[in-house]
Amino acid sequence: MALTPARTMPGVLELLPLDQIAFQRMLDVIRRNYERFGFLPVETPVIEYSDVLLTKTGGETERQVYFVQSTGALDKADEGTPELALRFDLTVPLARYVAEHERDLSFPFRRYQMQKVYRGERAQRGRFREFYQCDIDVIGKDALSVRYDAEIPAVIYSVFRELDIGPFIIQLNNRKLMRGYFESLGIVDGDQQMLVLREVDKLDKRGADYVRDTLTGAAFGLSAEVAQKILAFVQVRSTSLQDAFDKLDALGAGPEAMEQGRAELKEVLGLIHAFGVPQTHYALNLSIARGLDYYTGMVYETTLNDHPQIGSICSGGRYENLAGQYTKSHLPGVGISIGLTRLYWQLHDAGLIDTAKSTVDVLVTQMDEAQLPAYLALASELRGAGIATEVVLEGGKLGRQFKYADRAGIRFVVVLGEDELTRGVVTVKDLRREDQFEVARSELVKTLRVELEQAAAMG
Amino acid sequence: MALTPARTMPGVLELLPLDQIAFQRMLDVIRRNYERFGFLPVETPVIEYSDVLLTKTGGETERQVYFVQSTGALDKADEGTPELALRFDLTVPLARYVAEHERDLSFPFRRYQMQKVYRGERAQRGRFREFYQCDIDVIGKDALSVRYDAEIPAVIYSVFRELDIGPFIIQLNNRKLMRGYFESLGIVDGDQQMLVLREVDKLDKRGADYVRDTLTGAAFGLSAEVAQKILAFVQVRSTSLQDAFDKLDALGAGPEAMEQGRAELKEVLGLIHAFGVPQTHYALNLSIARGLDYYTGMVYETTLNDHPQIGSICSGGRYENLAGQYTKSHLPGVGISIGLTRLYWQLHDAGLIDTAKSTVDVLVTQMDEAQLPAYLALASELRGAGIATEVVLEGGKLGRQFKYADRAGIRFVVVLGEDELTRGVVTVKDLRREDQFEVARSELVKTLRVELEQAAAMG
Repeated sequence: MALTPARTMPGVLELLPLDQIAFQRMLDVIRRNYERFGFLPVETPVIEYSDVLLTKTGGETERQVYFVQSTGALDKADEGTPELALRFDLTVPLARYVAEHERDLSFPFRRYQMQKVYRGERAQRGRFREFYQCDIDVIGKDALSVRYDAEIPAVIYSVFRELDIGPFIIQLNNRKLMRGYFESLGIVDGDQQMLVLREVDKLDKRGADYVRDTLTGAAFGLSAEVAQKILAFVQVRSTSLQDAFDKLDALGAGPEAMEQGRAELKEVLGLIHAFGVPQTHYALNLSIARGLDYYTGMVYETTLNDHPQIGSICSGGRYENLAGQYTKSHLPGVGISIGLTRLYWQLHDAGLIDTAKSTVDVLVTQMDEAQLPAYLALASELRGAGIATEVVLEGGKLGRQFKYADRAGIRFVVVLGEDELTRGVVTVKDLRREDQFEVARSELVKTLRVELEQAAAMG
Repeated sequence: MALTPARTMPGVLELLPLDQIAFQRMLDVIRRNYERFGFLPVETPVIEYSDVLLTKTGGETERQVYFVQSTGALDKADEGTPELALRFDLTVPLARYVAEHERDLSFPFRRYQMQKVYRGERAQRGRFREFYQCDIDVIGKDALSVRYDAEIPAVIYSVFRELDIGPFIIQLNNRKLMRGYFESLGIVDGDQQMLVLREVDKLDKRGADYVRDTLTGAAFGLSAEVAQKILAFVQVRSTSLQDAFDKLDALGAGPEAMEQGRAELKEVLGLIHAFGVPQTHYALNLSIARGLDYYTGMVYETTLNDHPQIGSICSGGRYENLAGQYTKSHLPGVGISIGLTRLYWQLHDAGLIDTAKSTVDVLVTQMDEAQLPAYLALASELRGAGIATEVVLEGGKLGRQFKYADRAGIRFVVVLGEDELTRGVVTVKDLRREDQFEVARSELVKTLRVELEQAAAMG
């Protein structure tokens, strides 16, 4: 029989076990922190009805959707859009979930969701067709205090501090402030404001001159003075909490939207401080607009200080109404998303993530086949104490067994030969410290637990 | 705008948050136990190439496959089988994974994988189109000792003991023993043996008389004596380890396959004992055949003593060669699968699973808006100590805040009013015990930690 080449499609991240362990640890840290802030888990099906999924989305997203058909449905082809599709984010399923289960949920509804999403991206390095999103959202019924917008940066801070991937800054802006400021400059039309924002978004890539030329060019026709004011506005960054307040005040009075945005930003900034986020870890950045049109108030991006090229590692904001396409209820919300697959890949690419140590703590070697029951009893005891233990069942040379442990990233190798059995001891080889010690059989569990707890405490 | 009805397709299990927590805890228990036995995590993409996925499968499975097409690919319809499909189990992706990464893996390769799989089942109560499988497999290179077949029941025992869903029995059989025994009765042809096995599988549903009539009828044409021997064989159950050995011996001598199967079963039974699995939790059951044709040696099923109607909650076995369709390497293995979505649903349906307590331990109420910074500081302190804490940010009547906590399943509600602040204390309401106590502000974290640890220890 001809062999089928074993391969996966481009755009998926499939990891070897030790890398998967490193990835899983990041997922665990994120989940733990989400739960600590009182967010509840939700999982939704990967497959949704196409009409449910595609109510709101524009052409761009629609072209990237994966449609799904069972074998039976394929026979009835050419009947337009298939009935089913894979979710392309977690926000649309959240909207559907909240609308569907509204009566069974308590509001404000705080949920986290960490699942994979699917996009038919062009195959290209660093673009993923399947990737994890790790989202939190707080959904209010009718209204939701801006105080929840201040809690979000506290969660971000908590997550990335524990992920321990280097210093980071949570950058804050407010859409109302931006729109109000544009209004004060005579750019009143909402669509026109969006177009200006889109140009401004190119500042980092194209530079100030390019953006100024575009804004004063035929497409926009803004005066040099207005263009200059816009550029000055979007270049505002704060260096401390007080500096943020000062810079917001220095913008001068403006129309209602601008005053609202400023008030929201001030309240959020004050509360972030009360939430215990240090001033080194958040800043005003009036260039942050976020591509998505549905953000209406606060917006967030988070960047790594030492790796700006990675871009935002956690983004989100406030939206006016989550599920208007499914329900008449008014459901404002605020949330963020961490695209973990891309983040992991980038950190790994930049050499910032090591391959993890194994989840296996101990390998019990097989020195003497006849003593297998003793090895199994020892392993049961270790496992009972919560120590992940593998037993060599097949035997073979001890040197090969050590080599296996080393290659597999297992730290402790336990040897129990005739000599040890007679003397009631166990020999432990610590492959990390390249050390070896003997311990009484009855003390083994305690000794290894102490070692492993110390190692865990030290990260 | 007309509203789109918010709904999911039939055959998916979408849970409310507290049920999701109960489900997540089961996933965590399974993962923890798999890791304790030294299995390493693997995740594979949900979408695979169709030709990779469908090399081995028969018509039945093929008709249940979900095919995937991105919007662009839909335009080029009518070009036969779509290029991509959703995995329908975790075994085929494992085979592909091992073949693809063979040179980077250490053998015996021990992996666990807990992900969702997809089958285009008919919509019917209790049938799932999306469901979790929680698999372990040990894959050998060229050979794999039968000792690994004895480790599998030890893992099953460990998982279901901790899942704590009632008494259970791991039922063991061996395909070689069965085939050898049939051979000794003159049923030599492999396909014929399979057909007999398939009839025998109906014993529980249709009864002995029906099966006897079929076996002696035109389709099989077996003598009454042979049919009786088959029925006696498949009704063998052991009541203890010694009884299992005795009953295996009582089968009498047989052809080589039978002797091999008997020897394997005996070795496995002896080692299961050494692995510390109590005799109450495993038994010989010579009717276990498992539907899948690729099992070649040991086979396992696990049933709940008090709920036989649920059927097998964990099944698997030994197979001769994992990935023959992708590689020339000979890769024998042994593994099991827990279909957690179906199991959870059945347990829930039978009233055996409570809705979980919330993952949120504490709700900090908002008695006095002006004291919000004090509430946030308190919450930060609790979170820092690993206590999942939600703060009421929106205010409102205290009674409503208590009601929210009660409805959300949050156990402790913390009240910090002017009076408490002056006196340096905190009032804690324990909604589970319907009790209330006052504690010094400085002692709060310690007190709650003790309470929560006690609750966790008591399950």
